[in-house]
Amino acid sequence: MTNWDSTYPYLRTHTLDPENQESPISFIEKQLTPEQYLYRRNHLHYPKIEQDLFELRIYGLVSRPMLFKWTDLFSMPSKTIDVVLECSGNQRSEFRPRVFGVQWDFGAVSQGRWTGVPLRYLLSMAGILPYAVEAVFTGADSGTRTDMEGIFNYERSMPLADILSTDDILIAYAYNDGEIPYRHGYPMRLIVPRWYGMASVKWLKQIRLVDRPFTGPFQAIDYNYYPHANSDDGKFPVTFIQTNSIIQRPTDLQILKEGVHSIQGLAWSGLDQLSTVEISFDDGSTWIETEFEHHPNSPYAWSRWQFDWKAQEGFYSIRVRARDSLGYQQPMKAYWNRMGYAYNALFRVRVSIER
Amino acid sequence: MTNWDSTYPYLRTHTLDPENQESPISFIEKQLTPEQYLYRRNHLHYPKIEQDLFELRIYGLVSRPMLFKWTDLFSMPSKTIDVVLECSGNQRSEFRPRVFGVQWDFGAVSQGRWTGVPLRYLLSMAGILPYAVEAVFTGADSGTRTDMEGIFNYERSMPLADILSTDDILIAYAYNDGEIPYRHGYPMRLIVPRWYGMASVKWLKQIRLVDRPFTGPFQAIDYNYYPHANSDDGKFPVTFIQTNSIIQRPTDLQILKEGVHSIQGLAWSGLDQLSTVEISFDDGSTWIETEFEHHPNSPYAWSRWQFDWKAQEGFYSIRVRARDSLGYQQPMKAYWNRMGYAYNALFRVRVSIER
Repeated sequence: MTNWDSTYPYLRTHTLDPENQESPISFIEKQLTPEQYLYRRNHLHYPKIEQDLFELRIYGLVSRPMLFKWTDLFSMPSKTIDVVLECSGNQRSEFRPRVFGVQWDFGAVSQGRWTGVPLRYLLSMAGILPYAVEAVFTGADSGTRTDMEGIFNYERSMPLADILSTDDILIAYAYNDGEIPYRHGYPMRLIVPRWYGMASVKWLKQIRLVDRPFTGPFQAIDYNYYPHANSDDGKFPVTFIQTNSIIQRPTDLQILKEGVHSIQGLAWSGLDQLSTVEISFDDGSTWIETEFEHHPNSPYAWSRWQFDWKAQEGFYSIRVRARDSLGYQQPMKAYWNRMGYAYNALFRVRVSIER
Repeated sequence: MTNWDSTYPYLRTHTLDPENQESPISFIEKQLTPEQYLYRRNHLHYPKIEQDLFELRIYGLVSRPMLFKWTDLFSMPSKTIDVVLECSGNQRSEFRPRVFGVQWDFGAVSQGRWTGVPLRYLLSMAGILPYAVEAVFTGADSGTRTDMEGIFNYERSMPLADILSTDDILIAYAYNDGEIPYRHGYPMRLIVPRWYGMASVKWLKQIRLVDRPFTGPFQAIDYNYYPHANSDDGKFPVTFIQTNSIIQRPTDLQILKEGVHSIQGLAWSGLDQLSTVEISFDDGSTWIETEFEHHPNSPYAWSRWQFDWKAQEGFYSIRVRARDSLGYQQPMKAYWNRMGYAYNALFRVRVSIER
């Protein structure tokens, strides 16, 4: 009985086939989420990866098509960056009217340290032909969909203009200074900071340069905002992570005793640096600034914030609100869209304080 | 990479101090819940158990006070029974208006095989004195409360009349044919079939016979139905498990493809045998009987039910309803009570079927 006082959280399971499990984010203290607490978001079965045979192919509109094993990347220029990955469906369960799909609570977000070769570097080795406009990224995972017949790989594209403007889009081969965990894209994964997680294609096996916008279903059907319940009018693609913040503790509808409690949480944005993280005890009428810390060297990391609260008997509705340097702040009500992406309304916990 | 296709669920964490984690009940296929998927419900820190020193004391209004080690029980008459244990706070998160406390979804229920000595047998060994009316059960776990000063052990009582009417209230020393898991009451746990889980005191260290109703806080404050938000008028104690049923799969707001889907779930009651388990696809206007199976030899077990559904394109609201042999059936709306016990309104999943 050596473990008589140790407790620890687990992932929360939404589906097993494919596997979708969220991080116990209320209990995550570490800046780098360990593998066991990294949220798992899959569209399809896990692929079978032949450890030593797996190759990444760069082809299409390039002058020198290339094949890389992950070990080939070790000798190339690399970057290591701490990045928040958030599923665009995070907090989908909060939308009203309700929307269908995996009912993520607020744990489809994690942060890790990714090491890899800038995609720009690899593409310049391959030689981008002048009429290429997009890169299409193909994951090794494949399977069926509910809305179409056929077998599909997970495939997403990005405009070359976006790719070539930064050294921070990586072909990653390491997570938290070790191999990328199998469930998270081993051996090579695209990592796109600032974008929702759907852009960071796992088990990356092909990069194809093409001369027109890609229209595969994970690009043109899923991961679009549909503003209307019964028509596709006005749809537009999901890209950057919207400014967001959560209260980790206390948890919603918790009962606490009078005294000083540390309210703790996280805030992040794919848009710009955060400028303030504020807390309200009166449902948004008045706001108080919390203490929060920027990551010392990554603009893509979350910020921890905290507030020491001297709690007196009563019922409280506590909200948090993040604002970025451009002045964007989280809304009181989220932008409803039919597939339920990018929920970022002000996070709330209700607390009862007993004497 | 031997595990490239295996997925499995985990407990879902509500609090870690004390530990409250619910079973991933949607994914539980086995009749006997293994330890790793057994819900954990604690009011207080885990106790430190000295494996070979732990003793159960029977005292108070008995003619022969006694002390037992768990190994002493092995040579006594024993029973082995399959029992549903359900936390009375299960599904608390469904109450509207919302109530404070651990926000259990529908996984604070599990089933296991308990082996132990009938409590009636042990009490008769000790000799019940004539003016004893209740037995008070003390767990080894202790700690503070939010609503009172002081240190309390977890303590609950039952009327002797209830205890002496059955051989199926056990001092259990085995779970699923092995030791009781540490987190679930090792080495000895009271098991009270039909009652909500709060009656089945873990780490049982004392049984005290008393001449008046026990008024400890886990008896007289917690685990009572309070019908009113702002007064304690009309409160009455939580006892038997109310008839209940759930849909395990599909899960709420899931998207499926047209075709035949097996709808699966569980139903149980602490009141009486189930007579029917019905399903509705029109939010309760019409009902169809499902196939369900009584446990072959335990009246305290859950029943698995299933229904093969030929699903066509559209949106569906699916409900399940259990009825017992006395004619009680689950209500459309749960009985609201301030501490949020015994939620058993008709369980619903909403499903979108795509062509």
